[in-house]
Amino acid sequence: MSDPADLLEEAVPHEEQEQVTHKLIGEIVEAIDDRDAARVRELFEDLHPADAADAVEQLVYDQQVELAEIAPEVFGGEMLAELQEDTRADIVNELDPSHLAEAIQDLDSDDMTLVVEDLSPEMREQVLAEVPAADRTRLESSLSFEEDTAGRLMQREFVAAPTFWSVGNTIDHMRKAGEDLPDLFFEVFVVDEGFKPIGSVPVSKLMRFPRDTKLADIMETPHAIIRPDRDQEEVAYLFEKYHLISAPVVDDDGRLSGMLTIDDIVDVIQEENKEDMLALAGVNEASSADTVWSSVKARAPWLLVNLGTAVLASGVIALFEGAIAQLVALAVLMPIVASMGGNAGTQSLAVAVRAIASRDLTVSNAARVIWREFAAGALNGVIFAVVMGAVAGLWFQNVTLAWVIGLAMIINLACAGLAGILIPLGLKRAGADPAVASSVFVTTVTDVVGFFVFLGLGAMVLL
Amino acid sequence: MSDPADLLEEAVPHEEQEQVTHKLIGEIVEAIDDRDAARVRELFEDLHPADAADAVEQLVYDQQVELAEIAPEVFGGEMLAELQEDTRADIVNELDPSHLAEAIQDLDSDDMTLVVEDLSPEMREQVLAEVPAADRTRLESSLSFEEDTAGRLMQREFVAAPTFWSVGNTIDHMRKAGEDLPDLFFEVFVVDEGFKPIGSVPVSKLMRFPRDTKLADIMETPHAIIRPDRDQEEVAYLFEKYHLISAPVVDDDGRLSGMLTIDDIVDVIQEENKEDMLALAGVNEASSADTVWSSVKARAPWLLVNLGTAVLASGVIALFEGAIAQLVALAVLMPIVASMGGNAGTQSLAVAVRAIASRDLTVSNAARVIWREFAAGALNGVIFAVVMGAVAGLWFQNVTLAWVIGLAMIINLACAGLAGILIPLGLKRAGADPAVASSVFVTTVTDVVGFFVFLGLGAMVLL
Repeated sequence: MSDPADLLEEAVPHEEQEQVTHKLIGEIVEAIDDRDAARVRELFEDLHPADAADAVEQLVYDQQVELAEIAPEVFGGEMLAELQEDTRADIVNELDPSHLAEAIQDLDSDDMTLVVEDLSPEMREQVLAEVPAADRTRLESSLSFEEDTAGRLMQREFVAAPTFWSVGNTIDHMRKAGEDLPDLFFEVFVVDEGFKPIGSVPVSKLMRFPRDTKLADIMETPHAIIRPDRDQEEVAYLFEKYHLISAPVVDDDGRLSGMLTIDDIVDVIQEENKEDMLALAGVNEASSADTVWSSVKARAPWLLVNLGTAVLASGVIALFEGAIAQLVALAVLMPIVASMGGNAGTQSLAVAVRAIASRDLTVSNAARVIWREFAAGALNGVIFAVVMGAVAGLWFQNVTLAWVIGLAMIINLACAGLAGILIPLGLKRAGADPAVASSVFVTTVTDVVGFFVFLGLGAMVLL
Repeated sequence: MSDPADLLEEAVPHEEQEQVTHKLIGEIVEAIDDRDAARVRELFEDLHPADAADAVEQLVYDQQVELAEIAPEVFGGEMLAELQEDTRADIVNELDPSHLAEAIQDLDSDDMTLVVEDLSPEMREQVLAEVPAADRTRLESSLSFEEDTAGRLMQREFVAAPTFWSVGNTIDHMRKAGEDLPDLFFEVFVVDEGFKPIGSVPVSKLMRFPRDTKLADIMETPHAIIRPDRDQEEVAYLFEKYHLISAPVVDDDGRLSGMLTIDDIVDVIQEENKEDMLALAGVNEASSADTVWSSVKARAPWLLVNLGTAVLASGVIALFEGAIAQLVALAVLMPIVASMGGNAGTQSLAVAVRAIASRDLTVSNAARVIWREFAAGALNGVIFAVVMGAVAGLWFQNVTLAWVIGLAMIINLACAGLAGILIPLGLKRAGADPAVASSVFVTTVTDVVGFFVFLGLGAMVLL
């Protein structure tokens, strides 16, 4: 063991400064350009796999591919597991199957699955052919579950003990098992004769009791027993809610077959949050390594939908061409009503999507929340009706115009509040993701209502 | 210990169905309305603290207060710790200080801090006066750190061991310490003579080695040693990146003074994600218990800012009143250009905010990402210039108008891409939160540019 002072030296930089500096990236890029494999290896040598993954994510796709070509050793098993999903999905297919088979050898089965699941069918077959039989069986079993389910996330390494074991038996068993144990684990699962999980003992608790204590006397009821086909988002919710660190996964017969751990769940939480945020903004997916073309493809579909709704809103305006020609002030002011509605609708929508995701919006309070959103919209409508009425009245020296824009503002903001909550709830009830597409629908409502009410009232009253 | 079959009975519902049903909430509300304390206690009795917290969050504020009045026992320490921050902040001030002092007694110091930090200064003083001296010292020390820092989040209970201890020494120490140990812990921190953390041994690893193994021989270098003034968002980033389960916190002299655990960090991650999403939509804060009035207050400021920018955009339109009066088609089509720009800008913005939050957007790739956003915007501009040009040309039977809207679309979408990335980067550089206010700035750009270019070109070419 090295000197403790040196260890601290090594450890402190993690806190005080980034490992992956702009300078380091520059040097890596230079080494890749020079196709200098030795230099590349040297630069990556001392990096933690998580830092190495970060560095690779800073490169553009072509550089990543070239890196894989000249120095495949950089893509070790742990580092591949640390990469973000989209980067990993791209790069694994550029690596040699034999290299991959060897790289994943020391990983726990959940991380192995992460690396293998994004391979093309042919590559996957080649890699599976080269890993040891035991790993292959585990991998094939993991891959038999749908993507984004507990079955894909779980690891097959865990510690199980029968109820009649004592603390001493359990510790002795673990000492003997040694390498067969998971890299890290936090609970011993207690199983009955049918290998069904009926309790768990946190490892830290195991330490606290005398060796002759029976597990049955100190075990806790599991807060969640998870089936492998469960959606990862729901699993993440259980982990968050009950502050779980690990949880047992059972097969169809209720037998313990795997373990989920919080470190994998944190990745799921981040992934789901990212998806929600991008979905609300109308982006299908995004990564910093995206090219111009992949960005265009991820965004054009929603822009097309938006164009459709914008044309619809224009159609509403066209109904009032005559009124606008007579009173151009209507054209000048109409975007204000629409813009305020769009903004208020987006506010309601973000609150609703967030509340649905965190299970705060339920049958029990839906009616109250719908009413609140409507009332908050209407009340803000009143506030901004007064402000905007005053502005419009002074600007165009026209009191009637002030009343028209004020009334339109109230109606549009009340509709915005309603649309912002009802549209995601409707999508949810229809089994769709409440974040996807909802902002387009909401702004369609606020544009159409805004233009129609303002121009309609204007045409009725002012001409 | 009860029969294992019963345990499974109890455990399975957690998976298959919600504990906090619509029916339960209805019964709770009824019992509160009847001021039937016995019934309320009965309904909450069997709930896990996390479920009890969920149930309380479904109530409106007045019901929460009434519940605290008739059955304060429902608000136990663990349940208070499980409540969402805003709900907890409201309700703790409605409870009796003596009840609070007793309720937090069995909590770890991090959870104690959570409960106490939201109290009014007088309440806080009263509670502190009633807790045991040791707890008071810990609490006062935690509260001496800024909100949202590692110092507030950390717990002061942890297990430390000197380098020369063996696995056996450590286990014996823990058996003896018993109740003084943290409720849950995952690592033993190894300290030098100066009580500086120089390594850590996961508890599961401790189990794997013979009793005479020296800690110094199996300890790992800590990936992060955290100072208590560190912002919680940065701490969460370290946990995510290195897949940490716990981390040591040190004081100014580098001495081990606390421990952070992943379960608290998961809450931080959710909190920060929620803030980003709401900030992007222009909402200051939100909870499902919000009243109409608190929702109005959280949203009106951003609506006011939006009104300002909408009036600015109208000012641009007003410059072209003459052109609109001559060709009303300009008024009909202008919102399309603005809306498409706003949409494309929001897309860029969401991608940028997300990339900044996950540290994927750095000095090393900023130039490339800026270029990509500009080019993706321009390219989508070309696509929708063609589509919209065709639509406008056919609709108004005017080829020149088709060219004008096409060109305006390209320019506005390119500007939208640039604004979507440059505005959050600029806010970040200025030390502000890149999510807050950025969508208002982006739509200001796209509205102003959209109206100005389309109407300006139209006035030049068509009249």
